[in-house]
Amino acid sequence: MTNTQVTLVQIDNYGPWTVTPEPRREADLQTMQSRLYADISQFVGNRDGYTFFTRFDNMIAVTNGLTMADHELLQESVGNRYPVTLSLGVATGTSPVQALSDATTVVQDAGSAQDEDRRECLEGRTIDDPHRTDDDVQIAHFDVVDATGQYTDELNAFDSFIQIEQGYAELMRHMRHAHDSLSFFVGGDNVIVVCPDLEADDYEEAIGHVETAVDVELQVGVGRGSSAHDAGFAAKHALEVCRADGTRVELAW
Amino acid sequence: MTNTQVTLVQIDNYGPWTVTPEPRREADLQTMQSRLYADISQFVGNRDGYTFFTRFDNMIAVTNGLTMADHELLQESVGNRYPVTLSLGVATGTSPVQALSDATTVVQDAGSAQDEDRRECLEGRTIDDPHRTDDDVQIAHFDVVDATGQYTDELNAFDSFIQIEQGYAELMRHMRHAHDSLSFFVGGDNVIVVCPDLEADDYEEAIGHVETAVDVELQVGVGRGSSAHDAGFAAKHALEVCRADGTRVELAW
Amino acid sequence: MTNTQVTLVQIDNYGPWTVTPEPRREADLQTMQSRLYADISQFVGNRDGYTFFTRFDNMIAVTNGLTMADHELLQESVGNRYPVTLSLGVATGTSPVQALSDATTVVQDAGSAQDEDRRECLEGRTIDDPHRTDDDVQIAHFDVVDATGQYTDELNAFDSFIQIEQGYAELMRHMRHAHDSLSFFVGGDNVIVVCPDLEADDYEEAIGHVETAVDVELQVGVGRGSSAHDAGFAAKHALEVCRADGTRVELAW
Amino acid sequence: MTNTQVTLVQIDNYGPWTVTPEPRREADLQTMQSRLYADISQFVGNRDGYTFFTRFDNMIAVTNGLTMADHELLQESVGNRYPVTLSLGVATGTSPVQALSDATTVVQDAGSAQDEDRRECLEGRTIDDPHRTDDDVQIAHFDVVDATGQYTDELNAFDSFIQIEQGYAELMRHMRHAHDSLSFFVGGDNVIVVCPDLEADDYEEAIGHVETAVDVELQVGVGRGSSAHDAGFAAKHALEVCRADGTRVELAW
Repeated sequence: MTNTQVTLVQIDNYGPWTVTPEPRREADLQTMQSRLYADISQFVGNRDGYTFFTRFDNMIAVTNGLTMADHELLQESVGNRYPVTLSLGVATGTSPVQALSDATTVVQDAGSAQDEDRRECLEGRTIDDPHRTDDDVQIAHFDVVDATGQYTDELNAFDSFIQIEQGYAELMRHMRHAHDSLSFFVGGDNVIVVCPDLEADDYEEAIGHVETAVDVELQVGVGRGSSAHDAGFAAKHALEVCRADGTRVELAW
Repeated sequence: MTNTQVTLVQIDNYGPWTVTPEPRREADLQTMQSRLYADISQFVGNRDGYTFFTRFDNMIAVTNGLTMADHELLQESVGNRYPVTLSLGVATGTSPVQALSDATTVVQDAGSAQDEDRRECLEGRTIDDPHRTDDDVQIAHFDVVDATGQYTDELNAFDSFIQIEQGYAELMRHMRHAHDSLSFFVGGDNVIVVCPDLEADDYEEAIGHVETAVDVELQVGVGRGSSAHDAGFAAKHALEVCRADGTRVELAW
Repeated sequence: MTNTQVTLVQIDNYGPWTVTPEPRREADLQTMQSRLYADISQFVGNRDGYTFFTRFDNMIAVTNGLTMADHELLQESVGNRYPVTLSLGVATGTSPVQALSDATTVVQDAGSAQDEDRRECLEGRTIDDPHRTDDDVQIAHFDVVDATGQYTDELNAFDSFIQIEQGYAELMRHMRHAHDSLSFFVGGDNVIVVCPDLEADDYEEAIGHVETAVDVELQVGVGRGSSAHDAGFAAKHALEVCRADGTRVELAW
Repeated sequence: MTNTQVTLVQIDNYGPWTVTPEPRREADLQTMQSRLYADISQFVGNRDGYTFFTRFDNMIAVTNGLTMADHELLQESVGNRYPVTLSLGVATGTSPVQALSDATTVVQDAGSAQDEDRRECLEGRTIDDPHRTDDDVQIAHFDVVDATGQYTDELNAFDSFIQIEQGYAELMRHMRHAHDSLSFFVGGDNVIVVCPDLEADDYEEAIGHVETAVDVELQVGVGRGSSAHDAGFAAKHALEVCRADGTRVELAW
């Protein structure tokens, strides 16, 4: 049974900061926030977690294996190097959606995202090492069947983006409501989904749903592991099997 | 009349690279591509352009004011510092969608995005200085009315993201098909739209459409200028007026 | 007794790469190598190690607490994100100079720094957790007495740099030959020295030597710990005591 | 005749910031300052200037071709993305040492480097476009003859660094006092020197001096141009001739 540890990363008071004392150059904001994301991705990633940029001012990470001390160090390190600070909420559970919901609640309880006095709060709890297991995390890695041939080389860059984006948005909503899963666009035509215990049927159903709804054909590799990296790496290998064999759903186990 | 200069930035042969010789660590890919985007955003941005991460493997930039020599330097600099290279297509026109379409075509004509032999191609043409005018670029900066109060502090982080994402996706499709405009999510609850000559009515209509379709309430500031920064900066100031006065559409001119 | 774990970080075949196929833009090389250093510093640093940029193509790190698996992950992560790769040699010992010498030997034995076939070699061994102690690492943090008042605000920027550089170079040579220690300039007027078991007398002697030789007045805080960060953090606090009390040598223990 | 435009880049109130409210993690400071340097190097470099990290809290740049507006934009962009701000002094002249001295004076006149109230000052003046010429900048690029064979592959990493560092320090002092030139270590065994009008004889003399004083054998390529990049690129190509032909001094003109 999965036990996903989810961290909500929220930049403190970011909206007001971007327009104080007057609006800041957009390119600087874009540069700053994507580098901040990159740094968090690297910190979490080299501890075998995954971080998703989501809205950039609110990022979501799967942090099985990271302790509260790791989270504290991340806050300190960002505070030492950026003009903004982070608040973090951590929660765990069999349902990724519920875990994120709990992580959100502990941060919201500490104050509004735009409260000037709420800075660098760190709330929640992690899974202790002895309780970690090899199937705590289940990751599904989707991509679009022949995206380069069908979209990138055929449509203009924006229309192929709209096409892919529609597939992603539909998948995101469906996986959330039908399967308690969190889906994230990670670039190109790739979507990574953090799942509870789902089986091949569930993925078949989801792919069918997206194809019917928005006519985008997906394939998926799925992996399990004690960390996001372990599960996700297995999923990536499984997806390579889809690409090689022309199958639609491959489970790594 | 607008004359938008659009650059399509495409990472050469990126998909295959990410899985050669075997799949690379996802966190490294995320870090690499968001830093690459940040660097391009900074290079283009401190020449008064805007860059949007879009799919990360295909980025779209508004580059009025940048010459072909600037584009070449960007390619050289990225080639010197990253494990990947860039191909660039540049085109101009009164319709941003048409300009992007042309920029895409010149890159596609040079070879597939996954062609091993197509590397660092640079195609197209820019607007010469004497032909630049103060209303070449029109930028609309949208955000969600009271997103923090309605979503960030109320819903869990993912559901508020879904909510905002739906508003964005609907706006993106509508602005593309009804108004020949390119819309980009830029973080938080912000969407930047690159427009042809549109008037207040068009923005009212678009906001109404999104509210009807997905029940997300938007406001927008719009600016014009000889560059994306000039137009976008005016748009940001106009959006501040919306926030202060509770209006829905503010034009800076 | 100290037991310093030293890692030599060597960029593979860097010199030839910088001029292949022809010399690369200097600013790109400077950007690339300082970002690479920053990344290594962050990776090692958030595992409580210290990394020194030294020559940039050869960096030296104090890595007590990092395993061989950590070293391997660093190599993989850099290889995924940079156009160059790293070879690493690790060694331990009571003398930092001897440890570095051993770390160098294992890398040199694997091939020349400019051998095209030597890539990503990882050699040597780390200290197992059960053998780590609270005084494995001794760090001395030196700075120049009133550098801002005497140099930065008085001399031109280059002459104050020459002055500080002379103090640093003299300290570096002296600490290496008289005290088996490794000294590194870390910016401003700060020098960090990785030491074997030295006592207050040794530091008094070194400060006296530098003052006599090149007329630069130094002060120093010294700390011990199981990691570079623990030792170095204690040293920084001790140096704050020098600054507050006007003393020249402060030991944290 | 040369007319070098030199910019002194000073981080405002940096020393106090690094220990407020208590000493910050060294690895974070190292990461932050080397990334800040990398960003400045990139901004200046893609406008054909050179930036040297020098002390990191005080950096020196050759900025021929950059306007005061460019300098202002650099300040704004750094202020938007870092927890620290920059003050800049700009001056020009036939002697690089004198230009730097003047650039330093204008910043010092604005207040102490550790004055809390001196923030983001921008002083001095640049060379107007009509007055720029093709020999405004003269750059000499030195390296150590067969550094890899003699030092990197033979000595331990620290002793080869000491060896190279001694050559560099001697060259730096000599070029400053005998030839009004500014020398900067740029990594590996490379030193870049910003010179007034010097001839082959001067470089022969300097190489002889360093060999006599500290027994380090140098070679040098020298170039001229309207910008640091143009001059430096010619110097790098000239240095390639030294490497190929075994000569010691090559002028590109």
